Amino acid sequence: MKLWDKGISIDKKIEQFTVGNDREIDLHIAKYDVQASLAHAKMLRHIGILTGDELILLEQGLKGLAQQIEKGTFKIEPQFEDVHSKIEFELTTSLGEVGKKIHTARSRNDQVLVALHLFYKDHLKEIKTKTKTFFDTLLSLADTYKNSLLPGYTHLQVAMPSSFGLWFSAYAEQLIDDVFLLDAALKTVDQNPLGSAAGYGSSFPINRKLTTKELGFSTLKYNVVAAQMSRGKSERTLALALGSLCNTMSRFAMDICLYNSQNFGFISFPDQLTTGSSIMPHKKNPDVFELIRGKCNKIQALHTEMVLITNNLPSGYHRDFQLLKENSIAAVEDVKDILDIFNYTIQKVIVKDIDLTDEKYQHLSTVDSINNLVIEGMSFREAYQTIGKQVQEGTYTSDSAKSHTHEGSIGNLCLEEIKAKFPK
Amino acid sequence: MKLWDKGISIDKKIEQFTVGNDREIDLHIAKYDVQASLAHAKMLRHIGILTGDELILLEQGLKGLAQQIEKGTFKIEPQFEDVHSKIEFELTTSLGEVGKKIHTARSRNDQVLVALHLFYKDHLKEIKTKTKTFFDTLLSLADTYKNSLLPGYTHLQVAMPSSFGLWFSAYAEQLIDDVFLLDAALKTVDQNPLGSAAGYGSSFPINRKLTTKELGFSTLKYNVVAAQMSRGKSERTLALALGSLCNTMSRFAMDICLYNSQNFGFISFPDQLTTGSSIMPHKKNPDVFELIRGKCNKIQALHTEMVLITNNLPSGYHRDFQLLKENSIAAVEDVKDILDIFNYTIQKVIVKDIDLTDEKYQHLSTVDSINNLVIEGMSFREAYQTIGKQVQEGTYTSDSAKSHTHEGSIGNLCLEEIKAKFPK
Amino acid sequence: MKLWDKGISIDKKIEQFTVGNDREIDLHIAKYDVQASLAHAKMLRHIGILTGDELILLEQGLKGLAQQIEKGTFKIEPQFEDVHSKIEFELTTSLGEVGKKIHTARSRNDQVLVALHLFYKDHLKEIKTKTKTFFDTLLSLADTYKNSLLPGYTHLQVAMPSSFGLWFSAYAEQLIDDVFLLDAALKTVDQNPLGSAAGYGSSFPINRKLTTKELGFSTLKYNVVAAQMSRGKSERTLALALGSLCNTMSRFAMDICLYNSQNFGFISFPDQLTTGSSIMPHKKNPDVFELIRGKCNKIQALHTEMVLITNNLPSGYHRDFQLLKENSIAAVEDVKDILDIFNYTIQKVIVKDIDLTDEKYQHLSTVDSINNLVIEGMSFREAYQTIGKQVQEGTYTSDSAKSHTHEGSIGNLCLEEIKAKFPK
Amino acid sequence: MKLWDKGISIDKKIEQFTVGNDREIDLHIAKYDVQASLAHAKMLRHIGILTGDELILLEQGLKGLAQQIEKGTFKIEPQFEDVHSKIEFELTTSLGEVGKKIHTARSRNDQVLVALHLFYKDHLKEIKTKTKTFFDTLLSLADTYKNSLLPGYTHLQVAMPSSFGLWFSAYAEQLIDDVFLLDAALKTVDQNPLGSAAGYGSSFPINRKLTTKELGFSTLKYNVVAAQMSRGKSERTLALALGSLCNTMSRFAMDICLYNSQNFGFISFPDQLTTGSSIMPHKKNPDVFELIRGKCNKIQALHTEMVLITNNLPSGYHRDFQLLKENSIAAVEDVKDILDIFNYTIQKVIVKDIDLTDEKYQHLSTVDSINNLVIEGMSFREAYQTIGKQVQEGTYTSDSAKSHTHEGSIGNLCLEEIKAKFPK
Repeated sequence: MKLWDKGISIDKKIEQFTVGNDREIDLHIAKYDVQASLAHAKMLRHIGILTGDELILLEQGLKGLAQQIEKGTFKIEPQFEDVHSKIEFELTTSLGEVGKKIHTARSRNDQVLVALHLFYKDHLKEIKTKTKTFFDTLLSLADTYKNSLLPGYTHLQVAMPSSFGLWFSAYAEQLIDDVFLLDAALKTVDQNPLGSAAGYGSSFPINRKLTTKELGFSTLKYNVVAAQMSRGKSERTLALALGSLCNTMSRFAMDICLYNSQNFGFISFPDQLTTGSSIMPHKKNPDVFELIRGKCNKIQALHTEMVLITNNLPSGYHRDFQLLKENSIAAVEDVKDILDIFNYTIQKVIVKDIDLTDEKYQHLSTVDSINNLVIEGMSFREAYQTIGKQVQEGTYTSDSAKSHTHEGSIGNLCLEEIKAKFPK
Repeated sequence: MKLWDKGISIDKKIEQFTVGNDREIDLHIAKYDVQASLAHAKMLRHIGILTGDELILLEQGLKGLAQQIEKGTFKIEPQFEDVHSKIEFELTTSLGEVGKKIHTARSRNDQVLVALHLFYKDHLKEIKTKTKTFFDTLLSLADTYKNSLLPGYTHLQVAMPSSFGLWFSAYAEQLIDDVFLLDAALKTVDQNPLGSAAGYGSSFPINRKLTTKELGFSTLKYNVVAAQMSRGKSERTLALALGSLCNTMSRFAMDICLYNSQNFGFISFPDQLTTGSSIMPHKKNPDVFELIRGKCNKIQALHTEMVLITNNLPSGYHRDFQLLKENSIAAVEDVKDILDIFNYTIQKVIVKDIDLTDEKYQHLSTVDSINNLVIEGMSFREAYQTIGKQVQEGTYTSDSAKSHTHEGSIGNLCLEEIKAKFPK
Repeated sequence: MKLWDKGISIDKKIEQFTVGNDREIDLHIAKYDVQASLAHAKMLRHIGILTGDELILLEQGLKGLAQQIEKGTFKIEPQFEDVHSKIEFELTTSLGEVGKKIHTARSRNDQVLVALHLFYKDHLKEIKTKTKTFFDTLLSLADTYKNSLLPGYTHLQVAMPSSFGLWFSAYAEQLIDDVFLLDAALKTVDQNPLGSAAGYGSSFPINRKLTTKELGFSTLKYNVVAAQMSRGKSERTLALALGSLCNTMSRFAMDICLYNSQNFGFISFPDQLTTGSSIMPHKKNPDVFELIRGKCNKIQALHTEMVLITNNLPSGYHRDFQLLKENSIAAVEDVKDILDIFNYTIQKVIVKDIDLTDEKYQHLSTVDSINNLVIEGMSFREAYQTIGKQVQEGTYTSDSAKSHTHEGSIGNLCLEEIKAKFPK
Repeated sequence: MKLWDKGISIDKKIEQFTVGNDREIDLHIAKYDVQASLAHAKMLRHIGILTGDELILLEQGLKGLAQQIEKGTFKIEPQFEDVHSKIEFELTTSLGEVGKKIHTARSRNDQVLVALHLFYKDHLKEIKTKTKTFFDTLLSLADTYKNSLLPGYTHLQVAMPSSFGLWFSAYAEQLIDDVFLLDAALKTVDQNPLGSAAGYGSSFPINRKLTTKELGFSTLKYNVVAAQMSRGKSERTLALALGSLCNTMSRFAMDICLYNSQNFGFISFPDQLTTGSSIMPHKKNPDVFELIRGKCNKIQALHTEMVLITNNLPSGYHRDFQLLKENSIAAVEDVKDILDIFNYTIQKVIVKDIDLTDEKYQHLSTVDSINNLVIEGMSFREAYQTIGKQVQEGTYTSDSAKSHTHEGSIGNLCLEEIKAKFPK
């Protein structure tokens, strides 16, 4: 029988299979489990399940654990299957009977739920803040390079004049839409699920408004079945909000890698931000930006994973949900890193002077030439044909381009207006 | 050469390949193209490109087309590749030189963009309204059946008492989170992209604030490159908002199909809502709910399609974007239908009396029994073991269950509080 | 009530909702339903359910319908919900009692199943043939351009010498892997599901081996529950085989669009294969290749749709499966078109002379320079550092590159060996 | 600046960002990198780059490393970014100049490629073997329970008689289709990419046929650009083959969870294979099967991740590809575990006696009753209406069902025929 190949018994293997790497993952939410346990204990005191003295003992125990977590000394040893059993064990060991009372009127299901809600809420806020920092950086770069022209492309063909100012601030303005989704995800997780127990509530007269206030949630997820179903919904919503942000960053990174190619030659980066090759000594590869792109693309797949794990399951808890947290938590941590790295490295960009008189850019101003004819009185369609004929016959010469003045154009970037749009 | 197999020349085939079914799809956005053309014309008059008389002529021409669209007599014949060339042709045919002026200072790119933004905005609002109707229906059913008990399941195993009131209102409260995303999608499309032209703006001194006001947009997508990039972002955001709503409905439909199975027997539907079999004369199948589930699951895949079409493309327009609209528009129409059908059919549900004294439900109240012991003074973990022993030894008898009183429990559904949470 | 808004009654709307666009889709499989009905009738005769005369009548009726389908005059009128009821109606109308016998010992479920299996099998074979044609075209282009050099890129940075011969034949060799999957999909659908009835077989002593032989299937899907489950599995497997082929074509189209950009300038296409712009008179856009890329990317999303529709559904037929066929059939037709168009247009490619002495390509041969030092006796890592120093100090001058001779290199394309690898 | 928050300098953070967790992941492929290095060294000797003595030294060095890997003592310390630099460092440290020669005529790109091909090939074979074991187990269970009846469902409604024999062997037969895809994936990775260097080959006269033979590959990936592009294609193909297998297992697990529910009550499992609840003392939850389902659903999302990372990237290596291996390797390991666990636990299944005379199953035999009438001479459609009327009027009484005899039916499972279909 293959199962014992490596000296591992089948029972051990089944145990590993069901526990998975919860012990590692749960370190991310330990802090939040303690927070929620504190609130739960206060509530139990409030409804008379705990005495005042018992509450004091539990608070001391929980705060001690909080300090261990803060210091990084908290560990989940192999004999515990997750952070929740570890914490209950610690409290029972140090406090005796009192420790056994903390699980009154709750279930591991709502313990996990509330800890994850708190984790997601905290980190979504942090991600929003980092997105704002990145947004500001891009607007600042746009301002610095507002007069540096860049060829604009459609169909990857030379089209019309653009500028670095326009390019940087385009991605800034795109981030605003992503923040709409981050805010929606925040609202989704900012609802207290504690008190749903195993998904059908409790016969104890618990006070969910009290824990809601204590934990800083804006409202309750009232219905206990709905609270249970937020497992999965939180992760799907998180995944799509992060995915949207990552889509913007991925496409920006694609532009960077392309513009950094010798064939475009629009930008470059200092040597310390590029990487060599094991075989080609001349290479200065933009690995950082390729990895930003790749990681962002990977995170865009998270939503499919979350949907596939939960789809078509009837209501009520299923153990499958345990698998939702691993990659959700990893994606949250990755997005924070990506934002930090992107924000830092983009500031080092070297914007090059582009020779727009080069032959390949000779038709960059045909639209402006048409517009000049229209201003002189020709209809648009006739002017289009006149300039088109010049291009075809090779007689077209680039006009001194007209200035662009309307909102959002190369001559009028509206950076302040864009800045004002960022959601609070 | 296989290409001529059916008497179709390769050029014809290439033409079909590039045009696709734009002529059919574009009928959905024809109304919005006319709206946007009217606003654009007014703006051209404002900046002196059109005379007052020319504007009057264009307005007459466009309003005539609007009437045809309204009446359903508007057609896009095979000689036109899309709605935009058809409309320009009609105006030029009927108005002569004036018709040729309407395309001044805009490109087909921003024409499509603005028409799609207007379409999505209108329909997202309609979907939000229909979602509210469905939400109200579910809350009303929850109120009607608040005293009808239902076994609650975890792991598909009999767990604790639930109720139809809890079940209906759970899905209602879930819809609120979906509306957060619909609102985010609405904000994303409620930004005027008109004036971005081919994605790099125009040298004409166009007034984008005027068209923004005229079209009822809340703000501008200022940056013209960002406006162009909203092609794709709109569709991705729409897809994930619709997908989230569909996930909720799909899971609800799954519950319905399961509860309607003879082995659960919790609900049934009138014969006219069920479907027979070509081979089994006794069948009354819940096809409507299976199709709701299936269509909702299909729409959840739309996001992957939208991401795959746009991902890793450098900034600037690409013809690939033409493919974004077909399934986005179809999904919008499908979601509207699903909401209508679901809202109608769920009201016909027949809630059955469930015999909770049946042997298979004998352990439904163990948690309440534990809680009774705790109230009498035992610690939770001890009470858990006491009742557990009774279950194991077969001596457990179901308690008269305690009433559940906390917020969101079977005894206190908080329907008014849930109602108040629905976003305006 | 919103549902009657457009004068459509709710019953009508539910009917439309459940029938969907089956009438249109089913035209694709009408031919195969007739084939399978003929085989089924022969089998019924064989086991004595039909008399010899009845079989003759049914064969005449079915062949008449086959002719209508061939000629394109066959229609499914609004009173029929699908092709199967239409055909049964026609037979009953023209043949009376005999027509009512054809449905003996089968169910609509296995009728749909077998028709789809036949459709997929036929079209997968056709797609394999078209892939072979495309493969041959690419190898032929590789041979034609085997001496035309091209810069090779890694990280989108100029790396080492490549050639058009290498580029064309790379995509040819990639197609071979896609054919492994097409063959796997073919094997999956080349198993007769007829006889599974509603998914649990029949009490009639039907002879499934007879229909298997009659329909040209290689084997039976024996187990009737498995046969039923092939609904969904066929579509998922088809989707991933088509998706893999489309991934190869999409990436090739991406290269084409990039190499056709003025900044690369490696290839171009005749004017009749490019498209103009509504605003820029100089544009010659590669829309055909962008649409190939976009359509191929869209088809790569099909697999997610097929998985989402079927995932987590218990065994046994569900009406959701009706939704599997629409986009599967559409994808099959699209892939055939894409292969035709790609095969035709790529032959028109204009390969340009690339000036590899241009400054941006100056380091293209550093690896060859290192290798020359190694051949002279230096260790690889030292040679790497020697040339690296020259590059850094600006003293590097391009060697006359060494010839590449190994299998699969620019100097030894192994086109015959690649050709021989294509699966029969 | 937020980046230094935790005392980590930005350079450190960028390094971590680019290296990722390659050091952990690479332990999975260390063995294969050594294998490939051995073959490469032999080939370098063959073409005269290494002397006979040098080859002996390198072989000793590499075999020493192979032993460390085998024993589990091989480590990749923080100063190395991956397994390849670690191995080159070890060889250079212990062998001096000779160690520096091993990288001649190859690049890290093809080192990674060939190691991954070898890893995937080995593990796909192992997965195929484990799938065969599972297949045999299911057929054996089918044989054991061939006479145990089970109600069959369509639309989750009671439909027609099925059996445990039919149910077990259905999933066995489904596995055959999955093996078609495993075989296609095997063919895809069973092609030697070594010699492609950085993706454009080498000017050294390397002998790729020699390394192909040495490494046991069936053929070469000839074209060096194609070889490079197999990065991504291998992973996509692997993902879809594993995903297909997982789809089958996930649906089987869904059936198990449903049939194990009290409301079905068709099967159960020994206590040691079920899991308790932290709150409900009576629970015996099928967590193992829920986790099989969940993990299988997660792996079905891998394909989307692989596509998203690679899609629309121009040909040539990109650093994004580094991200392909982590979840591919993890999925391979997970699938092996799932197959072991599933194969072990399913053998413990307790098949219950089902009382088919229960009222809810009263219409299970209507199709057989119809068939009896047909055998007596009635046309199918009339018999259908006769029995239908009885059902509607409540006069229908269940016939003693006819025996089912055709291939693949409950009375004739064809287990031997199914067994014979399993691909070698």
